[in-house]
Amino acid sequence: MEAKLTLIGAGPGSADLITLKGIKALQAADVVLYDELANADLLNYAPENALKMYVGKKAGDASFSQDEINGLIVRLARKRGHVVRLKGGDAFVFGRGHEEMEYARNHHLTVEIVPGVSSCIAVAESMEIPVTRRGVSESFWVITATTRHGELSEDLRLAAQSKATVVVLMGLGKLNEICDLYKRFGRAHLPMAVIQNGTRPDEKSVMGQVWEIPHLVRENNIGSPAIIILGEVVALHPAYALEYVYSLQPELL
Amino acid sequence: MEAKLTLIGAGPGSADLITLKGIKALQAADVVLYDELANADLLNYAPENALKMYVGKKAGDASFSQDEINGLIVRLARKRGHVVRLKGGDAFVFGRGHEEMEYARNHHLTVEIVPGVSSCIAVAESMEIPVTRRGVSESFWVITATTRHGELSEDLRLAAQSKATVVVLMGLGKLNEICDLYKRFGRAHLPMAVIQNGTRPDEKSVMGQVWEIPHLVRENNIGSPAIIILGEVVALHPAYALEYVYSLQPELL
Repeated sequence: MEAKLTLIGAGPGSADLITLKGIKALQAADVVLYDELANADLLNYAPENALKMYVGKKAGDASFSQDEINGLIVRLARKRGHVVRLKGGDAFVFGRGHEEMEYARNHHLTVEIVPGVSSCIAVAESMEIPVTRRGVSESFWVITATTRHGELSEDLRLAAQSKATVVVLMGLGKLNEICDLYKRFGRAHLPMAVIQNGTRPDEKSVMGQVWEIPHLVRENNIGSPAIIILGEVVALHPAYALEYVYSLQPELL
Repeated sequence: MEAKLTLIGAGPGSADLITLKGIKALQAADVVLYDELANADLLNYAPENALKMYVGKKAGDASFSQDEINGLIVRLARKRGHVVRLKGGDAFVFGRGHEEMEYARNHHLTVEIVPGVSSCIAVAESMEIPVTRRGVSESFWVITATTRHGELSEDLRLAAQSKATVVVLMGLGKLNEICDLYKRFGRAHLPMAVIQNGTRPDEKSVMGQVWEIPHLVRENNIGSPAIIILGEVVALHPAYALEYVYSLQPELL
């Protein structure tokens, strides 16, 4: 029996945004360890007798520590064979997938990585907002709001001064700080969107300018997990101008 | 008959990195218009009697102009029904997918977008290089080297001063300029990789430091399409240190 780990990016939420390669790996799983952000319907691809285990994490509130997950992967692979680690989005985008790969390999497991559709691009895309657009944005910058030490990432300060489309993951808890930062750099009127549960049936979003977003997020009860996107590309959304006008003059509705 | 366009991200190259949703759309296609960067094996998912048409583009050398492609989409959808536009990577990452969507919708086509696995993350990932890693990189910045007017993107100048992992698409023709820029900002020793045909059987790559990469690329005949990745995360590759030592002291091999 080969002790093996396959790290799969499950995609941004909708169950049909997993890759064919991901499905094949699930079908050959002896164990599936899955995260909150991975669509639980995908477990149906795994054999009935495979062990399926939820290992967190929901918005930073970890059910298992990373050390515990690493340990589980190695123990279960040695005992049962093929462990599939099913992670939301792509496993190498803030997913700690690389740490799991390294740990498993250091413990002599065979490791395979299956890239996934990343939420950082696909969630805005599902709302028809492109991260790049000829003549509008030549680049996009994907940043985690929360660093190891809990502060706002230093990269965000530079990003707020750049022309890049900026995509912030895990940033809802720092929304006010992020908007304040953009305002300090004179960008209170930059278009911005916040999207909860992107690509899922319960997707919710708000669009507007930086100055009004904290208010819109509260008013519409947008919660985690959410993606924040800042940049002129947001204004390409057909409803953008309308929503903005109505937010200022609701009597027009 | 409904005149419809579905824009599909075909993934980075390997045929099994398309999504399930993408396969379903291909199976329901009356017409498939595909690019060089999309894996041609994927055409087998389309019905036998569907029209399959190659519309470029190979490294900027367009077989059809964007206007011609836009016109084709609308004419073929009106005449035959469901047009699938199969694009490499993800259609909204420098793919001009948003322009095609907009044009089609302005001409009253129904439009659907199917996100794909983007090369900007997956190509490095297939070499086991993560774009982010706790304690090493808190963000990644994806930039096209070639702007509308043919110069190096202004965003690259700021990126070269940031701590972000920088991923440059369509950048091989500007490799010397990119390396010179990094050197000017004192980053000649930053780890860097160039990967041709990522995730395909004919994948080729070089790794090293900024100062030596132009030489390594020439020596190893790396050509387009290629992805450039700059940042400390490249040094996480297990062969990185070794390759570097051997490039300085080949007698150790």
